[in-house]
Amino acid sequence: MNEKIKVAVIGYGNVGRMAVEALQSATDMELLGVVQQPYCSDSARLLAARDIKMVQSLDQLSGVQVALLCIPTRAVPSMAREILSLGINSIDCYDIHGQLADLRLELDEIAMVNHSVAVISAGWDPGTDSMLRCMYEFMVPQGLTYTNFGPGMSMGHTAAVRALDGVEDALSMTIPLGTGIHRRIVYVQLQNGANLAEVKKAIKTDPYFIKDETHVIPVADVKQLIDMGHGVDMVRKGGSGSTHNQILRFSMQVNNPALTAQIMVAAARASIKQKPGAYTLIEIPIIDFMYGQRDDIIRKLL
Amino acid sequence: MNEKIKVAVIGYGNVGRMAVEALQSATDMELLGVVQQPYCSDSARLLAARDIKMVQSLDQLSGVQVALLCIPTRAVPSMAREILSLGINSIDCYDIHGQLADLRLELDEIAMVNHSVAVISAGWDPGTDSMLRCMYEFMVPQGLTYTNFGPGMSMGHTAAVRALDGVEDALSMTIPLGTGIHRRIVYVQLQNGANLAEVKKAIKTDPYFIKDETHVIPVADVKQLIDMGHGVDMVRKGGSGSTHNQILRFSMQVNNPALTAQIMVAAARASIKQKPGAYTLIEIPIIDFMYGQRDDIIRKLL
Repeated sequence: MNEKIKVAVIGYGNVGRMAVEALQSATDMELLGVVQQPYCSDSARLLAARDIKMVQSLDQLSGVQVALLCIPTRAVPSMAREILSLGINSIDCYDIHGQLADLRLELDEIAMVNHSVAVISAGWDPGTDSMLRCMYEFMVPQGLTYTNFGPGMSMGHTAAVRALDGVEDALSMTIPLGTGIHRRIVYVQLQNGANLAEVKKAIKTDPYFIKDETHVIPVADVKQLIDMGHGVDMVRKGGSGSTHNQILRFSMQVNNPALTAQIMVAAARASIKQKPGAYTLIEIPIIDFMYGQRDDIIRKLL
Repeated sequence: MNEKIKVAVIGYGNVGRMAVEALQSATDMELLGVVQQPYCSDSARLLAARDIKMVQSLDQLSGVQVALLCIPTRAVPSMAREILSLGINSIDCYDIHGQLADLRLELDEIAMVNHSVAVISAGWDPGTDSMLRCMYEFMVPQGLTYTNFGPGMSMGHTAAVRALDGVEDALSMTIPLGTGIHRRIVYVQLQNGANLAEVKKAIKTDPYFIKDETHVIPVADVKQLIDMGHGVDMVRKGGSGSTHNQILRFSMQVNNPALTAQIMVAAARASIKQKPGAYTLIEIPIIDFMYGQRDDIIRKLL
């Protein structure tokens, strides 16, 4: 029997919680523990009741092969550098499209030196949607692809707003307007004494929002509005060879952090099979993300 | 500048014709010629007018790196063995789901010995649909996937009927009944003196048809019915971690041979980047199928 892959979850927010669930369902994975800083004794007690260890620092867990970075996107680069330097594989769901290529180049060097593997942007967009966008390109080389998100809560946008001065809590909804154009509706619960106009300005000039039509709506209690469902509708129309009007469409409606965490777990599995370096999902064969024997998978699913 | 990949197209039926179009649109590919046996002087003249060579045997073309096997599925195994033995990469769109895993194992040995690469079942199903079915599995590990084909003309089923005794021409339509169940409607144009009852029996007991509800309808002229549009609707509903009701859906409406040929061209590109052996599409990183520089693709599409 193969050894189980020894995994640590770093961060215990929405994605971290779902990563724990996904790891416990994966028969080839062993969850060594959850790293949470600052330590939360309530979460620790709940996890302890399920025989899952919560620790304050990764060095309190021994034998970790892969770490899932379930932390805010902007904290990913420095944490990934640290993990990779320890010779541990790093899986993240870094979601800033314009910066992930540079992150890959940077982590690639660190991973090579330390004989570790980084799989970056292992969520659904960037992530599995990117895999599909690339498949679309080789199936239908001429044409246009539109990625339409939502309606749903954007985790990255929400976290970006929550980090702003004057914001107690927030929810950023993504509304698809078609042909890849989106409206952002941001529900904000202000801290006492915060200035709405200033918060609005900070949101609208943030890189996450600056390109989109953005509406900011103050509310008394954001928690009442939370629904983690999200979706995408990705359409390509174009030509294969000299043949036009080839139409491809992918759509999904999902619990966002649950899918993200599940993809990170698949990327953890894939990371074990790669040579040292940093990879995006399109650089790894699909079969490496899957559980099972190669020949069995081919017989069953192709 | 990189050298162009030197490609031969073997067979000049529906897929072969579309392969010529796809190769002429691909800036990284050079079409050395079309191999057609028996030689067809009408096709040869039309190709010659476009500066494309038609020959009767592969050894009349020199420097071929990759051959696209645009021939009936049942002729693929022996032709692939021959091509690989010459040290030339072989790309096929072998479409018998239950036998492709064995074909892969057989060709893998031949390819290894001869330092060549086979990419098998490089069409859309098996092929790119298989890539998606596998992505579905790691995104939503618990649940059910239904692949619904059509309505549209099945190339493999049509070729199988055409090969039967007493059949002058045929068209096999695939009608989706939902949840992966299909009806086959086969329009047959009989040869003079052929017995309809015998042809019906031969069709209904053929491995291509034996599992499906199949109707055989005699017609005077099949050519009047031909439309090469086809489609698929592939749905998965299930759970990621402990979260249920994750819904994924892929659908397309395409010219079937045009898409098949385009995928074979992408597989030809990918074959150049693989180590000797035989591969299905899920065993090759998506980026290898794509035209362009790695970092550019990641910056543009992820």
